[in-house]
Amino acid sequence: MSRVVKLAVIPGDGIGPEVVAEAEKVLGAVTAGGGTRFEATHFSLGAARYLETGDTLTDADLAAIAEHDAILLGAVGGVPGDPRLAGANIERGLLLKLRFELDHYVNLRPSKLHPGSKSPLAEPGDIDFVVVREGTEGPYVGNGGAIRTGTPAEVANEVSVNTAFGVERVVRYAFELAQARRRALTLVHKTNVLVHAGSIWKRLVEEVGAEYPDVAVDYLHVDAATIFLVSDPSRFDVIVTDNLFGDILTDLAGAVTGGIGLAASGNINPEGAFPSMFEPVHGSAPDIAGQQKADPSAAIISVALMLEHLGMTDEAARVTRAVEEDVAARDGSPRTTSEIGDAIAARVQA
Amino acid sequence: MSRVVKLAVIPGDGIGPEVVAEAEKVLGAVTAGGGTRFEATHFSLGAARYLETGDTLTDADLAAIAEHDAILLGAVGGVPGDPRLAGANIERGLLLKLRFELDHYVNLRPSKLHPGSKSPLAEPGDIDFVVVREGTEGPYVGNGGAIRTGTPAEVANEVSVNTAFGVERVVRYAFELAQARRRALTLVHKTNVLVHAGSIWKRLVEEVGAEYPDVAVDYLHVDAATIFLVSDPSRFDVIVTDNLFGDILTDLAGAVTGGIGLAASGNINPEGAFPSMFEPVHGSAPDIAGQQKADPSAAIISVALMLEHLGMTDEAARVTRAVEEDVAARDGSPRTTSEIGDAIAARVQA
Ligand SMILES: CC(C)[C@H](C(=O)O)[C@@H](O)C(=O)O
Ligand SMILES: CC(C)[C@H](C(=O)O)[C@@H](O)C(=O)O
Repeated sequence: MSRVVKLAVIPGDGIGPEVVAEAEKVLGAVTAGGGTRFEATHFSLGAARYLETGDTLTDADLAAIAEHDAILLGAVGGVPGDPRLAGANIERGLLLKLRFELDHYVNLRPSKLHPGSKSPLAEPGDIDFVVVREGTEGPYVGNGGAIRTGTPAEVANEVSVNTAFGVERVVRYAFELAQARRRALTLVHKTNVLVHAGSIWKRLVEEVGAEYPDVAVDYLHVDAATIFLVSDPSRFDVIVTDNLFGDILTDLAGAVTGGIGLAASGNINPEGAFPSMFEPVHGSAPDIAGQQKADPSAAIISVALMLEHLGMTDEAARVTRAVEEDVAARDGSPRTTSEIGDAIAARVQA
Repeated sequence: MSRVVKLAVIPGDGIGPEVVAEAEKVLGAVTAGGGTRFEATHFSLGAARYLETGDTLTDADLAAIAEHDAILLGAVGGVPGDPRLAGANIERGLLLKLRFELDHYVNLRPSKLHPGSKSPLAEPGDIDFVVVREGTEGPYVGNGGAIRTGTPAEVANEVSVNTAFGVERVVRYAFELAQARRRALTLVHKTNVLVHAGSIWKRLVEEVGAEYPDVAVDYLHVDAATIFLVSDPSRFDVIVTDNLFGDILTDLAGAVTGGIGLAASGNINPEGAFPSMFEPVHGSAPDIAGQQKADPSAAIISVALMLEHLGMTDEAARVTRAVEEDVAARDGSPRTTSEIGDAIAARVQA
């Protein structure tokens, strides 16, 4: 019985293509034995495509991508300050558009301090938590506007939209995840200031939580959560939070664990109505692009998250283990992007 | 020539009264020689007052406080989850109301790693930066609302309001401050997602920056800023940012320097139309209240910020130096709140 997974690959900009090449290499290695075969279609999207054609993500692109079983994305975003990109917003027009249109309401971001990986914290402890970041609401909806733009009388607003529909489903996902892990869930928000948005999150964590009596629930204001992420990160198991707080906390979480070079993420549509998308948390880093300096580990761990999502638990574990072994063996001597990919691919096949 | 400063003191809840008592002790010590005399009026405000009278901050309270030259605040907020406080929001009704009504548009939060103070970072480097947090706009305005509250069809919104008037003045303050320091200003926002709010901040930093050509301007997304705060905090001089990002970044900044026990702040109305308010960044910590366990250093450094603001530069320096000496002399043996206050007061007079 041979299964075919149709994979949409969006290498993107900057270091995106380099790290994705290694991720595909490792994917090839872990599936070399047969069983499931990945059929990859590459989509040329990002700042480079925009500069060539003026398109960010056309309806045809979106429809074609949606036909796939999963998406692997490198990174998108041109050189900061590039005047030719001044009129474009690749992040909103491409990355966020994919997340919103494909209803990726769970943005899953695990943080783990692997043996051998370096934390900037003096006493990091055992770090192993997952941030479940809401992916389709909050301040990310783009419901903002400005009047008298460019004048001294300008007023610019942004609206954070939070629905019971949207909050309930991601909170439920987080409880399920916590139940399968160490049974501790922390809601992070700013309920004392963002009263209305905060209330709906609190209410739904309470209501859904009543169905998961074995999960211990905790609450932290976002400001306090940043303190604990550096002073006591091992206290966390599953964190559930809104789109913007999740963005901030997961970069910080990446920094306190092995660095952003190891932070992977899944943009998940749990029902499978749309393909889920897997990507490193890091950006396109145009300053080091094309120099084989980027660490492809986060892209490779994203492949593990994808395999897990596709039910290929063994393959996922092999990739994760290979990365962990590679990290543990690092001695600081420099390797190129593809040398790291080769090493991990070799470990996968060993 | 003897000057009298009318000081409104709001000890507040939890550890607030304990740390404020030490702050007043040190203020007494540094002004013991005469010259300027502080005349303190104590205002009983906070959760305790609310539970007694149902009032958070009456118009009469506000008018009375506004008659003073400066405000010293401890901390406000009752025991989390106290059912008697369920209908109240002491933070919004008292702390934020003071900041908004007294037009504290500059929320000044210095972060410094004092010699001898402990950072959780393995290699902290020289940390010495100031966050200029906007204090009267952004997502803190309270312009939110919900419909179908408590039902599965609820929608809860929060509006971030950003005006050219409000952004320009705090950006200008930050440039002035940078010019008097190491001449480097970092704007932190999330311009790629919060397009409208981000644009007004970017535009005004550019426009005002043109008047300060000797200040180097940098921009970081808030997520990236958290990474640099743990990986390379010494890169920062002055950070200017909105109300919510400033809230988050300053708790994190407190954590990476000597801990939140040393983080002080000023809520400043630079024009002096209203009294400015000085307070530790930490909260009321009801769990350790009344036990003489709290570190009053942040409240005492807040006094130094107040003295600086009032033009009492020498006195401010004496208080700062006394705290630094005390921190450098700490050997980990436990001291009560008032023992720490006594020690710092003694150093101030030495
Ligand atoms: C590029 C940007 C729009 C994106 C986000 O804010 O979600 C990124 O920071 C991330 O975390 O994936
Ligand atoms: C108590 C709360 C409203 C306040 C804030 O969010 O501004 C606090 O966290 C602070 O930073 O002073």
